[in-house]
Amino acid sequence: MRVIILGGDGYLGWPTAMHFAARGHDVVVVDNYLRRLIARQTSSEALMPNPNLQKRAELFEAISGHKIRVEIADCTDYRFMQRLFEEFRPEAVVHYAEQPSAPYSMIGYDEAHQTLNNNLNATFNVIWAVLEHAPDCHIIKLGTMGEYGAPNVDIPEGWIEIEHRGRKGTFLFPRQAGSLYHTTKVLDTDLLWFYVRTFGLRVTDLMQGPVYGLSTPESDLDERLLPNFHYDDIFGTLVNRFLVQAVAGVPLTVYGKGGQVRGYLNLNDTLQCVDLAMNNPVDRGELRVLNQFTETFSVNELADRMVRVGRQLGLDVQAKSIPNPRKEPEEHYYNPDHSGLLELGLEPHYMTDEVLAEMLEQVRKYKDLIDVDMIMPRVVWNEASKEESGVV
Amino acid sequence: MRVIILGGDGYLGWPTAMHFAARGHDVVVVDNYLRRLIARQTSSEALMPNPNLQKRAELFEAISGHKIRVEIADCTDYRFMQRLFEEFRPEAVVHYAEQPSAPYSMIGYDEAHQTLNNNLNATFNVIWAVLEHAPDCHIIKLGTMGEYGAPNVDIPEGWIEIEHRGRKGTFLFPRQAGSLYHTTKVLDTDLLWFYVRTFGLRVTDLMQGPVYGLSTPESDLDERLLPNFHYDDIFGTLVNRFLVQAVAGVPLTVYGKGGQVRGYLNLNDTLQCVDLAMNNPVDRGELRVLNQFTETFSVNELADRMVRVGRQLGLDVQAKSIPNPRKEPEEHYYNPDHSGLLELGLEPHYMTDEVLAEMLEQVRKYKDLIDVDMIMPRVVWNEASKEESGVV
Repeated sequence: MRVIILGGDGYLGWPTAMHFAARGHDVVVVDNYLRRLIARQTSSEALMPNPNLQKRAELFEAISGHKIRVEIADCTDYRFMQRLFEEFRPEAVVHYAEQPSAPYSMIGYDEAHQTLNNNLNATFNVIWAVLEHAPDCHIIKLGTMGEYGAPNVDIPEGWIEIEHRGRKGTFLFPRQAGSLYHTTKVLDTDLLWFYVRTFGLRVTDLMQGPVYGLSTPESDLDERLLPNFHYDDIFGTLVNRFLVQAVAGVPLTVYGKGGQVRGYLNLNDTLQCVDLAMNNPVDRGELRVLNQFTETFSVNELADRMVRVGRQLGLDVQAKSIPNPRKEPEEHYYNPDHSGLLELGLEPHYMTDEVLAEMLEQVRKYKDLIDVDMIMPRVVWNEASKEESGVV
Repeated sequence: MRVIILGGDGYLGWPTAMHFAARGHDVVVVDNYLRRLIARQTSSEALMPNPNLQKRAELFEAISGHKIRVEIADCTDYRFMQRLFEEFRPEAVVHYAEQPSAPYSMIGYDEAHQTLNNNLNATFNVIWAVLEHAPDCHIIKLGTMGEYGAPNVDIPEGWIEIEHRGRKGTFLFPRQAGSLYHTTKVLDTDLLWFYVRTFGLRVTDLMQGPVYGLSTPESDLDERLLPNFHYDDIFGTLVNRFLVQAVAGVPLTVYGKGGQVRGYLNLNDTLQCVDLAMNNPVDRGELRVLNQFTETFSVNELADRMVRVGRQLGLDVQAKSIPNPRKEPEEHYYNPDHSGLLELGLEPHYMTDEVLAEMLEQVRKYKDLIDVDMIMPRVVWNEASKEESGVV
């Protein structure tokens, strides 16, 4: 199949590109290195150096024999998108090309403005490039479970039937995100749904939870093919932060009460999910929403497991609570549905003690590269914590 | 009170500015003439010539003694917004500064892109100018009933309690608009609600139906103070189109089956609503949503009344159906709540036969200026109608 991967330099984009190329698909990756630029600007660089996209593609081809075409370009540049879609005529486009950091989007006006405009215009251009040049192309859009926030009711997969005063209707489940970044993904969904129902696009919106892991069959071929690993306060995930803190011997920083529950998944399961979505396309005029995670746990549960497994490996691991820089409920109901991808055939890899140990060992190899100064939150959007933590 | 009116050159902006100035408020209007520019570009100019904003403000001051400060500037220019909000320290800002044409937003990529970016960035800049320079300022945002679409259930005023599998939560009522323009207002609401709950803005979102009428106590002072009157396919409303067609002796063009029901209100009631919202501000951290209309009727009901009242005035009025250029249900359930503004004190002016006759007489004065070529739809986003109507 002819597949375009937008945001192909990213943590998910690059493994996805290798995954599809290794399975014989014709793959183009597009990236403008925005994440790398912001990482440099905010001193939030990844743990291991990742060669640039062109070099990684050359290396991957040399090792595996599979070619990946690289386009260094900005998805908000519509003339570029037109040329690419017109010439390549993709059958599927995987859209990861967004500024993905919640804390970055909360720094101030400029960062919020950039996040809003980059993310909305990238999505808008994908929509139009497909409408004008590849109307049958299936758009596989990376959404986020964060669009839903933490409501007091079970979270369906995108759609809900509402009964109100004796009448019924089916609607997109109302979303309420915790950062501007997550809110841009809410706007993306609104925009996609408008063009789906008006002009008959095909769209799958993958509402993904936080992903962990570095190993995939392709990234294991050479350490230079590993996806980026961020553990800083801007791009780092909770799992990565804890892994690095466990290895570095500094306490795991639990934000607030630590009762925040999220749905997690292994990087290999992300690849499976995107593959399943692509190989089971939706009809024209359909917006399919799939909640993409395999298991839920709280920050405290993860911290406990990290402490236990870390100590088994001889690491000095402790956990401590720090003021929560984010404005979010720290104890809440959380029960999202997630049967859609299982029904398509997803075979989950859970976060077992072995998986945790393997990730700790992998990070341990790069222990000397760890900069613990990157970890503590520098961006605070919880007024109460601002005073407590002294961060301004 | 110190009030900024964004989009002060518009059909609602200008009467609102005069209304507040006449009541002793300190008023600044901001406009970049985008609507006038698009009207010229698309050959969709208003029926009567409207002097520019500066000239209208000078005239209004000469006649009434009330000063209106004029700023010709673009709300998407944040440095301008910062300067204005910092210096003027508004207590309320009325935000009408959006590209308001649904058909324009559906012409093609460029128009859609402009609508999305203009509307979202204007709203984003209002949010940030308030956050950074006037955090207590009450944002009165013009939304639209069109955000809701035409759902099969009663439409509440913004919020709905959803019961799902035995648990309950309160959410923004899910919205589903019929054009990209209307969708940008959905995105505006999402954006406002995020910043309201995160940083404690005060926002009233006025979900307004189509407005009709030219007369207000202030606009009646001099015909050069009348608000703009568009009857073309780009900026014209249904009521204005029918008024002009009735006067010009061409058939009233009913789109499709004509069963489309909307909630309408008189221009004087818009002024009352905005005034009531301003004088009853919400608390910090509250998003109040009010459905702003006084009565509902279908296209066919309006056509019937226009025929009857027009004939009483000796006009040759007929109605005929044409293929619907829009993609919308032409027969549907429609029952939106609208008690909030009545509870605040709104005294409705309904569209009586007398009001209709008065509007017909008013348009009749400008009969010679009518260009009937402007009226037929040039923008079609209903695939079925495209073939039928021959419009491409």
